[in-house]
Amino acid sequence: MSPDSVDGAPPASSDRPAALRILIVNPNTSAEMTADIATAAAHAAAPSTEVRCVSPDAGPQTIEGVTDETLAAAYTVELLAGERDGYDGYVIACYGDPAVTACRELLDAPVVGIAEASFHMACLVAHRWSVITLLPRLRSVLGDLILRNGLERRCASIRSVSTGVGVAGPEVLEALLEEARRAVRQDGGEAILLGCAGLGPIAEQMRESLDVPVLEGVACAVTLVEALAGCGLRTSKAGAFAAPLAKPFHGATPNLSLLYAGDR
Amino acid sequence: MSPDSVDGAPPASSDRPAALRILIVNPNTSAEMTADIATAAAHAAAPSTEVRCVSPDAGPQTIEGVTDETLAAAYTVELLAGERDGYDGYVIACYGDPAVTACRELLDAPVVGIAEASFHMACLVAHRWSVITLLPRLRSVLGDLILRNGLERRCASIRSVSTGVGVAGPEVLEALLEEARRAVRQDGGEAILLGCAGLGPIAEQMRESLDVPVLEGVACAVTLVEALAGCGLRTSKAGAFAAPLAKPFHGATPNLSLLYAGDR
Amino acid sequence: MSPDSVDGAPPASSDRPAALRILIVNPNTSAEMTADIATAAAHAAAPSTEVRCVSPDAGPQTIEGVTDETLAAAYTVELLAGERDGYDGYVIACYGDPAVTACRELLDAPVVGIAEASFHMACLVAHRWSVITLLPRLRSVLGDLILRNGLERRCASIRSVSTGVGVAGPEVLEALLEEARRAVRQDGGEAILLGCAGLGPIAEQMRESLDVPVLEGVACAVTLVEALAGCGLRTSKAGAFAAPLAKPFHGATPNLSLLYAGDR
Amino acid sequence: MSPDSVDGAPPASSDRPAALRILIVNPNTSAEMTADIATAAAHAAAPSTEVRCVSPDAGPQTIEGVTDETLAAAYTVELLAGERDGYDGYVIACYGDPAVTACRELLDAPVVGIAEASFHMACLVAHRWSVITLLPRLRSVLGDLILRNGLERRCASIRSVSTGVGVAGPEVLEALLEEARRAVRQDGGEAILLGCAGLGPIAEQMRESLDVPVLEGVACAVTLVEALAGCGLRTSKAGAFAAPLAKPFHGATPNLSLLYAGDR
Amino acid sequence: MSPDSVDGAPPASSDRPAALRILIVNPNTSAEMTADIATAAAHAAAPSTEVRCVSPDAGPQTIEGVTDETLAAAYTVELLAGERDGYDGYVIACYGDPAVTACRELLDAPVVGIAEASFHMACLVAHRWSVITLLPRLRSVLGDLILRNGLERRCASIRSVSTGVGVAGPEVLEALLEEARRAVRQDGGEAILLGCAGLGPIAEQMRESLDVPVLEGVACAVTLVEALAGCGLRTSKAGAFAAPLAKPFHGATPNLSLLYAGDR
Amino acid sequence: MSPDSVDGAPPASSDRPAALRILIVNPNTSAEMTADIATAAAHAAAPSTEVRCVSPDAGPQTIEGVTDETLAAAYTVELLAGERDGYDGYVIACYGDPAVTACRELLDAPVVGIAEASFHMACLVAHRWSVITLLPRLRSVLGDLILRNGLERRCASIRSVSTGVGVAGPEVLEALLEEARRAVRQDGGEAILLGCAGLGPIAEQMRESLDVPVLEGVACAVTLVEALAGCGLRTSKAGAFAAPLAKPFHGATPNLSLLYAGDR
Repeated sequence: MSPDSVDGAPPASSDRPAALRILIVNPNTSAEMTADIATAAAHAAAPSTEVRCVSPDAGPQTIEGVTDETLAAAYTVELLAGERDGYDGYVIACYGDPAVTACRELLDAPVVGIAEASFHMACLVAHRWSVITLLPRLRSVLGDLILRNGLERRCASIRSVSTGVGVAGPEVLEALLEEARRAVRQDGGEAILLGCAGLGPIAEQMRESLDVPVLEGVACAVTLVEALAGCGLRTSKAGAFAAPLAKPFHGATPNLSLLYAGDR
Repeated sequence: MSPDSVDGAPPASSDRPAALRILIVNPNTSAEMTADIATAAAHAAAPSTEVRCVSPDAGPQTIEGVTDETLAAAYTVELLAGERDGYDGYVIACYGDPAVTACRELLDAPVVGIAEASFHMACLVAHRWSVITLLPRLRSVLGDLILRNGLERRCASIRSVSTGVGVAGPEVLEALLEEARRAVRQDGGEAILLGCAGLGPIAEQMRESLDVPVLEGVACAVTLVEALAGCGLRTSKAGAFAAPLAKPFHGATPNLSLLYAGDR
Repeated sequence: MSPDSVDGAPPASSDRPAALRILIVNPNTSAEMTADIATAAAHAAAPSTEVRCVSPDAGPQTIEGVTDETLAAAYTVELLAGERDGYDGYVIACYGDPAVTACRELLDAPVVGIAEASFHMACLVAHRWSVITLLPRLRSVLGDLILRNGLERRCASIRSVSTGVGVAGPEVLEALLEEARRAVRQDGGEAILLGCAGLGPIAEQMRESLDVPVLEGVACAVTLVEALAGCGLRTSKAGAFAAPLAKPFHGATPNLSLLYAGDR
Repeated sequence: MSPDSVDGAPPASSDRPAALRILIVNPNTSAEMTADIATAAAHAAAPSTEVRCVSPDAGPQTIEGVTDETLAAAYTVELLAGERDGYDGYVIACYGDPAVTACRELLDAPVVGIAEASFHMACLVAHRWSVITLLPRLRSVLGDLILRNGLERRCASIRSVSTGVGVAGPEVLEALLEEARRAVRQDGGEAILLGCAGLGPIAEQMRESLDVPVLEGVACAVTLVEALAGCGLRTSKAGAFAAPLAKPFHGATPNLSLLYAGDR
Repeated sequence: MSPDSVDGAPPASSDRPAALRILIVNPNTSAEMTADIATAAAHAAAPSTEVRCVSPDAGPQTIEGVTDETLAAAYTVELLAGERDGYDGYVIACYGDPAVTACRELLDAPVVGIAEASFHMACLVAHRWSVITLLPRLRSVLGDLILRNGLERRCASIRSVSTGVGVAGPEVLEALLEEARRAVRQDGGEAILLGCAGLGPIAEQMRESLDVPVLEGVACAVTLVEALAGCGLRTSKAGAFAAPLAKPFHGATPNLSLLYAGDR
Repeated sequence: MSPDSVDGAPPASSDRPAALRILIVNPNTSAEMTADIATAAAHAAAPSTEVRCVSPDAGPQTIEGVTDETLAAAYTVELLAGERDGYDGYVIACYGDPAVTACRELLDAPVVGIAEASFHMACLVAHRWSVITLLPRLRSVLGDLILRNGLERRCASIRSVSTGVGVAGPEVLEALLEEARRAVRQDGGEAILLGCAGLGPIAEQMRESLDVPVLEGVACAVTLVEALAGCGLRTSKAGAFAAPLAKPFHGATPNLSLLYAGDR
């Protein structure tokens, strides 16, 4: 069978902008986690992509429940209300995707959460996949998130260890590996998703110890923003993500004042 | 709010290979459609990505139903059984994703179908999206495909015009636009997915006439293969996509003989 | 058939506290809407129930999208972090149930959102029901909320008029009635849920013009808090709604400082 | 943050009737269970509510399967066909909700089954909940009931002991507690629903031994009828629950004769 | 391609009993409908099958709602409790499948309802199918039934005319045809299911006027009982359909006395 | 209760053809399996039914994954394109239902896959059922197939042993029995479906060792084809299963040439 071959010539005709600028927000206030996220992003991004990684200067140091997330989401919105220009795409780097919907309203360039990014990428390499997260209480949060993304049938299981966010060390790695192996053997998980933005530093070690794909959300989100840019795609403003309406806002910060003045 | 900023330095540390090689298969035997697919791929791919576009030398000229698809899927498998090495990823360029599961068994590098690619990318820019395809009979095929991908709740509607695949012209564009507008206004579709591999040439015109994102599957699939490569991800072999078992195969072609000899 | 009758003697043995204290939060900053909510609550509550209705002193004047909701949710959490004692139950009076999950973590007494309250009550008087809300963009927000509550199959439709929150008048009533009638006739809605906290003042007029049950969320939520109290039920702390963990919080207000000190 | 407070004045303006009259039907013929149900109702009802508890004078002594339920449902309909006036609401007190749909057709005042009542109330205090019932064979009956109510995703598990209805004693309590603890620890149940009308007498003991909410259906249903009354809600007659059509009925009892004469 | 052919020799080795005996119950008391059902069964059954068609001597003359159905179900159980032997299979011939679950508990030989029979048969000849029934109020009953059978995604629509059961005539035929054509053209129904046991007499006329398969439930159920017998299949007693437990039954008829004595 | 009895007289009025002709295709090339399938069919079919059993002369000897299935499906289509006349119905005898949709397009007479046949028949004798198949990798294939059939809620579990297709012997029987017993005891399976076309020879032994119904797919499919014939039902051509469109086909075999010439 001699295939009918056509040589594409992408260098001549690629529609891509020469360099992409991506802004990543770590919604919590841990500088260490922000640095880890920046490193994970740098490894995954194309050489020509510029990545900037920021976090709000107020809010909880870690996000380990819905109260934390509710507060961090507001600080994230406040921060991004002041960064509405100058980027080709945005990443929200907390594995609960806080504020992602609000930021899609707020911004024109595409916004990708690291959890949803890992869900969609996992669907391309595994029939069903498992998430390993840090605290048992986060399992129901992630279950709701997967449901809202519409992918609950693709999720084999959500497992957790019992370590708080930001507490690392060899025994955490071992506990995560143990749950990952259970997910593969008992639940039918064919890929492992790391369910916390702070797990980038141990992703490589997990990959070496498991023989299934291991997905780290920051890498997934950054490369998906690049893919969206390659397709010329921006957030739809035709329905759920239409821009916020101008209105009185009591006690607004400067960023929010500008936003709610409808000033665009 | 002065954000706690960290400058990522991707040029220094990107893990990406210098250049990616992607093989795209058009499962039908229309040389014209193969050329159109190659063009769409070239526009979306990164400048450093090499894309080769092939099609089987036997099979139906267009794929307009499940019989066509069943036969074309087998020719696609036969073709790719002879191309198991030398590529960083594969794209199956027919908007029914024929043979994608088989090819995930067959190949180690990632395989992406253009329909599933558009579904997942659409989820990142729209709350719910609509597919516009060519023949009414394809609606149930696509409905099943979306269900199998687990994304039926994200799909606002599947609409069709009444034109066969490969029959283009201004009136087809107009008919597609009319259905797309109905999808947006009546069904709540916030993005439009072009439900045929051969619609690349009119994607730009549709974009100009609609104020919602328009997704063309070949572009989505090529950039998703790049994204998977950026994350170092390959198909999981731990379950659904384990390699085919060696076994007697009556009347095998050379490619299939090699495959079924378990020769790897 | 002479039924085997048993006369219960509730006055003698009722376990109910003599009087309930319920705190209602209007998450937006419209004093007019807060007053309307208080009125609706007073009509529905038992004579012995004390209802207090408050709103944050910062935030958007109306909640008409997810950005508004994300910000108002944080202000609601901040407000309730200072009201953790002294009430038998709490009502969040915005028809998107912002901050309800966070408040269930935060508080021990039961928390009920007015949207979920209307969904559950509607299930007891109608096989399927329809929500009528104010802005088309809120339809996808409510769709996600109903899904997260698990009741999407009980929802016949979500319809909207095109009026902003807080803009009332006879023509809004007429538009709402028109959509309600369509919901009954075309969608199979057997009850109508008023999809905004500010619609209490016209609920009675809608009831007079429609021959199906009309559910107003504030009334539903207040009476459900009374029902929960009658059963001695409080929020489960065994999983999703465990109390927030103590942790550093940059830039905390006094209420949040107390909360994150883990001081209980 | 000094909240913008509004003092509702419910004593002055409550729309509630001075006293509610609720009729509870125990669909089986066990006088002991009828008495237990009356006691549970009396504890939960408001002091001003009058509760009457009756049972048919024919039918199975316990309801432990669908044959039992099918027969008891008919006797329940026959009984309530003669009690169509004089009550503000009705409760069907068997944890399979037999005849609830028929009674919604039959009666104008609201009808609440004890199982559905517990499902809806549990959703307000727990993310997911578990039902503990008496016989393994009832698990599939309850699974179908939860599905029909649309709440299957909120149900963490349905567990059973192996004791027939009406057989109580310390070892039954211990067996129920053991299954309840498994539901919490292994299944993610955050509240326990007692899956039989006859378990009221041990509800308090279960509450003392478990640290999650325990829901007893009779209490839930009675307080929900009060809540519906507080909101002025009655069963919708616009669709599924329209009144039965007049027609010839062979061998009708006096109650059914009256009903089928269309005499209203 | 010369197929590798094997000639089965069924006449020599068929395991089928020489003749099957099937009992059909019409749960209502209309003798005319019982006769029509017997005719439909006779046309579909194999020549060697013996069919007996009966109805209870008490109950509503037609079944047009859930009250009717609840009462008729009990009479059906009472009737079949006296016919537990002598048949190879049973058919419940009312298109709401009343009492089918109870009868599966009661009887050892297979029991098939005419609605579920038509659902399953339709799945073999159509991707999605539509039910046309008589009264609008039956649509929600049938929707629940399809859901309970697990086939809601295979159902394209449930449509109704506005004619009571038992009222036939040319204008009813025309109204049914009009809804059937709408189901095919607008809803994607690829087969039409006649949603009432009394529509057998006009099935042939509908077939002649429509170019999609028309399924009449009595024929479907009778031939499915034959198919079950051909496979040697009887109702599983391992879970949901275990035999009723012996117990006191107040006011039992002779049939029920025998049943509840546990006498088998 | 003296039932109102009507004696149907089927021998006089049965519409059935005197004898049915059914063609069964074994999609793999194992002559031994073809013979086993023919035997299973002969036992289940009515004495008057003629069954012919064939297999393609090319393709994999067993079907143990999706690559095998994709190739075998094409050979099955090729074979049946030459057998479009002369049969009252067709059975595809591989427990993955390969090519069933294509064959419904291709043929006018009804087509039944042995897996779907067993799913539908099982629903008539069990509330939920379990499939026992041979290789772990087939579980996800069967899961997708059940989902596409719409019956995932009726499926209690899919279990597998670790034996390749075609490898029989006493230890395989024992392993299958062990998994079947686990399905009944642990998963709530009330019937066991044999998940491979080659298990007919041990079906009887499994039946003797289990006290739940055991369904063998070939028997189910053959008797369902008879049932469809008894009802006069053929595949709907109104949507998903419309005949393939005529078109150029490169490298067509004679059967496919005829098919794609649109020659009918």
